[in-house]
Formats: sequence, C-alpha cells, structure tokens
Amino acid sequence: MKALTQSEVEERLKELPHWMVKDGKLHRSLQFKDFVTAFSFMTGAALIAEASNHHPEWFNVYGTVRIDLTTHDAGGISKLDFKLAKKLNELAGAYL
Amino acid sequence: MKALTQSEVEERLKELPHWMVKDGKLHRSLQFKDFVTAFSFMTGAALIAEASNHHPEWFNVYGTVRIDLTTHDAGGISKLDFKLAKKLNELAGAYL
Amino acid sequence: MKALTQSEVEERLKELPHWMVKDGKLHRSLQFKDFVTAFSFMTGAALIAEASNHHPEWFNVYGTVRIDLTTHDAGGISKLDFKLAKKLNELAGAYL
Amino acid sequence: MKALTQSEVEERLKELPHWMVKDGKLHRSLQFKDFVTAFSFMTGAALIAEASNHHPEWFNVYGTVRIDLTTHDAGGISKLDFKLAKKLNELAGAYL
Repeated sequence: MKALTQSEVEERLKELPHWMVKDGKLHRSLQFKDFVTAFSFMTGAALIAEASNHHPEWFNVYGTVRIDLTTHDAGGISKLDFKLAKKLNELAGAYL
Repeated sequence: MKALTQSEVEERLKELPHWMVKDGKLHRSLQFKDFVTAFSFMTGAALIAEASNHHPEWFNVYGTVRIDLTTHDAGGISKLDFKLAKKLNELAGAYL
Repeated sequence: MKALTQSEVEERLKELPHWMVKDGKLHRSLQFKDFVTAFSFMTGAALIAEASNHHPEWFNVYGTVRIDLTTHDAGGISKLDFKLAKKLNELAGAYL
Repeated sequence: MKALTQSEVEERLKELPHWMVKDGKLHRSLQFKDFVTAFSFMTGAALIAEASNHHPEWFNVYGTVRIDLTTHDAGGISKLDFKLAKKLNELAGAYL
C-alpha cells in the first residue's frame, strides 16, 4: 500500500464530502444530537473498521466524534483511508 | 410498578406503531439492511436500556432484530415497557 | 463450505469446551454478572463475527447470552462455526 | 456539583490506581491487546457513562484508549469523575 501524492489526495477529496486533510491525515468531525447516537455510529464504524482491518484514530465527547485516518504502513494517506472514509460517510448518513 | 390491563395495553398500542402483543409481551421485529446497521441500532438500544435500568429480551441474526418487552416485577406489560418501546422507535427511525 | 458429519462434529466438540449441539446448531449459553458485561462481550463478538463475515443467531436478556451457530450455505454445522466458536470462547474468557 | 480542591483530588487519587491529573482532568491511558478488546471495553464504559449521565472525553486508536474526565458544570474535577473512574477501573480489570 502506497501513500497518495498531495494532488491525488486533493483529487479524491472532491468526491468525498465532509472530509479534509488535517495534520497530514484524512479528517472528519461529526456532531450527533447526543451520546447514544454518537456511540451507535461509532459501533457501526468499529464493525466496518475491524472487517477492513483498518482502524481510525478517533476522539469522542458526548455527541462529537472526530476521526483521523492514515495508513501507517504507507507513511501517509492511502486508498485504504479513502475507502474507509467513504463507508463511514454512508453510515453517518443514517444519523445526520 | 403495576402491570397494565389488557384494555390499557390495547389503548396504548394505538399510539405505538410497529409493536404488538405476542406471548404476553410487547413485541417488535425490525429488519435492517445488514449486520452493521442492526448491531449499531442494538448498541444505541443497549445504552437507552441501561440508562433506564430496564432491559429487553432480544434476538438477532444478521439484519433481523426481534425485541420482547415485559416487566418481571409487575408480572406483565407495564408503563416502563411502553416508555422503552417509544424510545426504541425513535432510535430505529434513524435507520429504517 | 460443506456441513460436517455428525461424527466430525462430535470429534471437534471434544476440544471446544462449553459448546454442544442443540437443534442442529452449535450452541453455547453464557451467564455474565450484569447487562454491561454481557453487552460488552456481545460487542466484541459482533466485531469478530463481522470481520469473519459469519454471524451468530443470538439471544440476550440482562446477563444471559445464548448463541447458536450454523452455516446456512452448508445446510448444517461447518468448520466456520467451530472457528467462530473458538474465538468467542477466547473472548468470553476475559469476562467469565 | 462542586469542583474538588487540589488537595482533595490528590487525596482521592491515592485510592484510584492508574489515574493521574493531566491538563486539569482526571486521566487514564489503557493498552489492550487489540481493537476488539479495546472497543468491547469502550462499549461497557459507554453503557456505564450513559447510565451515570456523565460522559468521558476519550481517544482510541487500535488497542489504545485514553480517557479524560472532568465535570463541565463544576469547572473542574468533581466527585462524579472519581465515581466514574472507579467504575471504569472495575470494568477494565476484566480485560487487563
């Protein structure tokens, strides 16, 4: 798995709403109405991540979830991160 | 906590879509598109149940979730079951 | 994926503590001390199941979890069920 | 709910293994063997937090979970944080 170049990342970001590059990682911040909804989303995301064998760095407090994706083995953002981000967007769509 | 009479249960069911009485318990069957979605819902439902200190009997296989609610201490269906059922309907609305 | 014969199942069960055949499925019943512990286990089990793309039929009420495993495509109990059962035993070992 | 004084916090920390004060919050870092175990713990912790109506700020990546507790309404660390921290220690004991 190779890291994508900056221009490849920018190109792919055009088709990935809600995500940006922050500190060299693919980043999305989500705001749910409460903890129940936020953690339900996180559980779905955890199932997707484990099945992909690709895990997020993420932070939660109450209804806020902040996700950072990067591929350690590639030393940057790879296709794996975009693939996971896309699935998380689909899942989040159910709640937001 | 007292069990509701049959006519009280029937009255309350009119305002609780998707639920019925089955084997003396308040019952709803839900069909999600996949396991990820079903188990995300279950986690939200688990959080609600634990915070209410009132827990479901429930069954899951893949996208199917079947829930039965009753109040053991009351020996039947009580207001607690209707309260939990209503919250589960709200939660399920996000997915279905 | 092929169903195992009855003697193959019996042979494998010797090395799989806590499980039995019930209604043609691989069955284990677990008793946790409370709902929090039971549902924590279930979440770990859900992650394992989703990553294996092999899902249980399971029932929960409070601290009780009952699991049935079968392989629909094989029309019976297969190696996949024993593989999942073994992983669930390892996970349950942390709690029980 | 009032914030505890620094000396009250220090006194209580003596009976709360694994926790320290970091950036004005009660902090514990946990290392699980894998994501499945870490997220199972997090789900148990989420159930406890929701039932306490007191939620953590927390970060996860793979087997690492970092938890910060503070009471916004009190403007600092309160008894609620110590109560939750103690329950999380008990839950973590099952895994670590």
